[in-house]
Amino acid sequence: MDKTVGVLGGGQLGRMLVEAANLLEIHVNFLDAPNSSAKQVSYHDGHVDGSFKDAEAIKKLAAQSDVLTVEIEHVDTYMLEDVAKTADVQPSWKTIRTIQDKYLQKEHLQSYGVATAQSVALKEPSKTELSAASKTVGLPLMLKSRKEAYDGRGNFPVKSTDDFEPAIQALGGNQDLYAEKWANFKVELAVMVVKTKDQVLSFPTVETIHENSICKLVYAPARGVSETINKRAQELARKAVACFWGKGVFGVEMFLLPDDTLLINEIAPRPHNSGHYTIEACPVSQYEAHLRAILDLPLDEQDLELREPAIMLNILGGDTPDSHRQFAAEALKHRRTKIHLYGKGQARKGRKMGHITVCAPTMSEAEELIQPMIDYADRGKPQSTSTLSSRSKEQALVAVVMGSDSDLPVLQPGLAILKKFDISFTTRITSAHRTPSWMAEFASTAASNGIKVIIAAAGGAAHLPGMTAAYTSLPVIGIPVKPTIGDGMDSLLSICNMPKGVPVATVSVNNSINAALLAARILGVSDMGIRKRVEQYVHDSEAEVREKDRRLLDMGADAYVEKYLSKK
Amino acid sequence: MDKTVGVLGGGQLGRMLVEAANLLEIHVNFLDAPNSSAKQVSYHDGHVDGSFKDAEAIKKLAAQSDVLTVEIEHVDTYMLEDVAKTADVQPSWKTIRTIQDKYLQKEHLQSYGVATAQSVALKEPSKTELSAASKTVGLPLMLKSRKEAYDGRGNFPVKSTDDFEPAIQALGGNQDLYAEKWANFKVELAVMVVKTKDQVLSFPTVETIHENSICKLVYAPARGVSETINKRAQELARKAVACFWGKGVFGVEMFLLPDDTLLINEIAPRPHNSGHYTIEACPVSQYEAHLRAILDLPLDEQDLELREPAIMLNILGGDTPDSHRQFAAEALKHRRTKIHLYGKGQARKGRKMGHITVCAPTMSEAEELIQPMIDYADRGKPQSTSTLSSRSKEQALVAVVMGSDSDLPVLQPGLAILKKFDISFTTRITSAHRTPSWMAEFASTAASNGIKVIIAAAGGAAHLPGMTAAYTSLPVIGIPVKPTIGDGMDSLLSICNMPKGVPVATVSVNNSINAALLAARILGVSDMGIRKRVEQYVHDSEAEVREKDRRLLDMGADAYVEKYLSKK
Repeated sequence: MDKTVGVLGGGQLGRMLVEAANLLEIHVNFLDAPNSSAKQVSYHDGHVDGSFKDAEAIKKLAAQSDVLTVEIEHVDTYMLEDVAKTADVQPSWKTIRTIQDKYLQKEHLQSYGVATAQSVALKEPSKTELSAASKTVGLPLMLKSRKEAYDGRGNFPVKSTDDFEPAIQALGGNQDLYAEKWANFKVELAVMVVKTKDQVLSFPTVETIHENSICKLVYAPARGVSETINKRAQELARKAVACFWGKGVFGVEMFLLPDDTLLINEIAPRPHNSGHYTIEACPVSQYEAHLRAILDLPLDEQDLELREPAIMLNILGGDTPDSHRQFAAEALKHRRTKIHLYGKGQARKGRKMGHITVCAPTMSEAEELIQPMIDYADRGKPQSTSTLSSRSKEQALVAVVMGSDSDLPVLQPGLAILKKFDISFTTRITSAHRTPSWMAEFASTAASNGIKVIIAAAGGAAHLPGMTAAYTSLPVIGIPVKPTIGDGMDSLLSICNMPKGVPVATVSVNNSINAALLAARILGVSDMGIRKRVEQYVHDSEAEVREKDRRLLDMGADAYVEKYLSKK
Repeated sequence: MDKTVGVLGGGQLGRMLVEAANLLEIHVNFLDAPNSSAKQVSYHDGHVDGSFKDAEAIKKLAAQSDVLTVEIEHVDTYMLEDVAKTADVQPSWKTIRTIQDKYLQKEHLQSYGVATAQSVALKEPSKTELSAASKTVGLPLMLKSRKEAYDGRGNFPVKSTDDFEPAIQALGGNQDLYAEKWANFKVELAVMVVKTKDQVLSFPTVETIHENSICKLVYAPARGVSETINKRAQELARKAVACFWGKGVFGVEMFLLPDDTLLINEIAPRPHNSGHYTIEACPVSQYEAHLRAILDLPLDEQDLELREPAIMLNILGGDTPDSHRQFAAEALKHRRTKIHLYGKGQARKGRKMGHITVCAPTMSEAEELIQPMIDYADRGKPQSTSTLSSRSKEQALVAVVMGSDSDLPVLQPGLAILKKFDISFTTRITSAHRTPSWMAEFASTAASNGIKVIIAAAGGAAHLPGMTAAYTSLPVIGIPVKPTIGDGMDSLLSICNMPKGVPVATVSVNNSINAALLAARILGVSDMGIRKRVEQYVHDSEAEVREKDRRLLDMGADAYVEKYLSKK
């Protein structure tokens, strides 16, 4: 905490970095223009006015700082290498040099066995070279500039040979290009990784949605992605960052392919847009994590956990110079919004001017809260991304398992209740007797797959609910199914009379409605949205019975039976 | 958002205010010394250097601001009244004038029917006057300065007539004193209230713990305080603030007396120490709420809800000038701590130099996380407040109800499980047949009293679980109790065979252990601490049975029965 940090660049990332530093009284000097975004919220005489591309200015910054770091990777790494002889530069200039050339970055990752999209460098920006590359990576492909490319600049999708000419023309001014195999991804994921002096830690896996190659939305955690993939993505991101030099946070962008394999897209050696959500959603933000990493202050996994699901929406510059402030004024009208404006002055079309984060106890509540702001961002656009943003299938909260598909008709009324309550569920056949190991596997991985409650239906010997309960620590609700022979008491007792130590919440025979309502009440313990829907249901049921009572009073018993119950 | 705010005073409250303002690009000018805490994080040329007691400086600040507000109530309200002729001062100078004189504040509140401790003003600071006042308010009493008193300065506890002399001597320099009836409170509560142009809104009720009359700890929400009292405290706080003039946030401190009545202790017309927790724990912090209120920006109840339980610990100056930075360095070693240092330079003993906030999914987890920092704060003190801080009884999460006390022996093994899992519970007798209206009242208010799960035991006709479920939207677990006649099947079927619409999670006859384990699994859906304990229990049970299997293999069946089962 007593060391002084020098930062090359003082834009919004620097601003959010110094907001974290101010809380810890960590002194940060910025090298940037006099009234840059970061300097506005950090008043002292240690800043350096100038460009982060000016060698003399960098030396001046280094002279008055204990540790140098960067807010942007497009710096002159030869200057950094020179400065590093006498100053502590984090992460290392070698890391920045490798990463800032995207082709070099991918080669480096592959040499460490980290999966990335297949890429071929073009010796020169020519149709011949591009054609040759297309033979290797196939078509379509993405033609990319190796350097100075971000927010979609420097990318050109090449769908057929007809695109060779326009692609080379569009990016031809840049001498260094490469062709990348087209990734037909299901979803884009990202993980913020923290490299400290002795550990590589990660924040949760998030889902990113880009529009015109600019990050628009970030969902934390990624929606419709199992806990297993969430963990695998974090592992891959940590593995990728581990092969670089030095300390600090890294933004790792990935593709999840249809067969659930993961590919690294690209890495940023600094705080990243996909990690803004951490300010509100995690105990320690990516900015504070960066400071802790480069200053050797303590940090641990627990500090990076998600407190609540969060969604981040970028505020991009619109058609007028104050469009971002209008956007913020609109966002203030909605509830639970945390607005971050960056102090960048007048908006330019498409420029990142701020962002909004919404946190809520559940992702579905967060989605409801952010929707009006997405609609505002999409106003007047031909095709709204509202649909895009809700395209991910939601993580199932309830697993409804049965020993046989013949139990399905009994379950249907219960499933209708789950739908009515907007509770996501999955239905599976896991027989205790015919598929014992699949049943065990499903039950024992349910919790780590994000399932919160299991409903199990079984008839006769009816072992499924109890056996499922034996393999999980989740609450299990058992529905006794009436078998073809007998009244179902055998099923009921087999499910209810569990030994001490392994409970099953038993409902009456064939009563899938009560099983579903019980699941809703259980989820409602912590999800106020679901609790409200349970309360509404109780209220509606009461009104319905009161209405029947009124009719009975009006009509008398005989007419009532005649009219309403005669089919019986 | 386009208005400029001027603030009298630029200490830590101003600093946290401008941190909120920076996010919204709201321009804030401070009147204070050149390098004051708030100015350090807000760089522009609109600040005024000087004292907030200097009339000329206030006029200069007013000239370059659209709205004036205060960070401290000890300002010259006659200057403010003068400035208010041409400037918008929020809250009104009348509010600040009334509040800054604590006796006037109490008289004002009482005139609006708001409960405060009985108080008598001393005409002069003399033993005679104090003796006369003690006849009215009784002994012990608290002798207080009417003005310029905060953080325990200006308070003197008068326990007997022997204290008259020292009390007058201690506070005698101040001409304006008053005697206040001693409040023998159970707990001190506080509520941050936001007065907007057309609404009075409140943050949750928190518990404050003072040491040497300085706020040390804040627990949000207040521990061991029912939802009803939490709501009543918010209502009282809103009622109190409603009788003042103007807009802004107000800190309302209260006493909760042994008979559960609430008394206002005092009010601050500004952001308050008891509201620091809102920065991390609520969607909108008290600072942003203050800005939104004085600038007529939108705000709603939902923005002030608690995201997670939180505990705030003040970092007070210690024996060395850098003691607060040492404290922060210590806090960094612990997990999930959010540290706020105020940039106030060298520490003075007892001065507020910063604070730490810890948020967690449950209060018990937050208590565990903050404890090492409380221990650090208390190091070397004769009597640690560690005990103090954990003295409040925790809110019961599980209600265990029974129709008759004769069911209690059946419930005991289940209660032991709840204790083992560290799950707070309450046991009540609510008979469906003998106390139907009490049963209905208990069940229908359980959710609003913070109960999350109900366990209901009943035998024979066994209506209690089902009737309880009919009056609540919480999950209800039913334990069939074996009656004196029969095997308990009557109880089991009466509990299990509920009509569609009202579910009861039924366990087997007399199996309170499974009922408790089911409650733990249900709470474990959202409380990871409890889920881990369930997993540990499952693991231990398995180990226990494996150990029995090993013994049986070693000994053979006959020896095993002889040694372990012969008592049967």
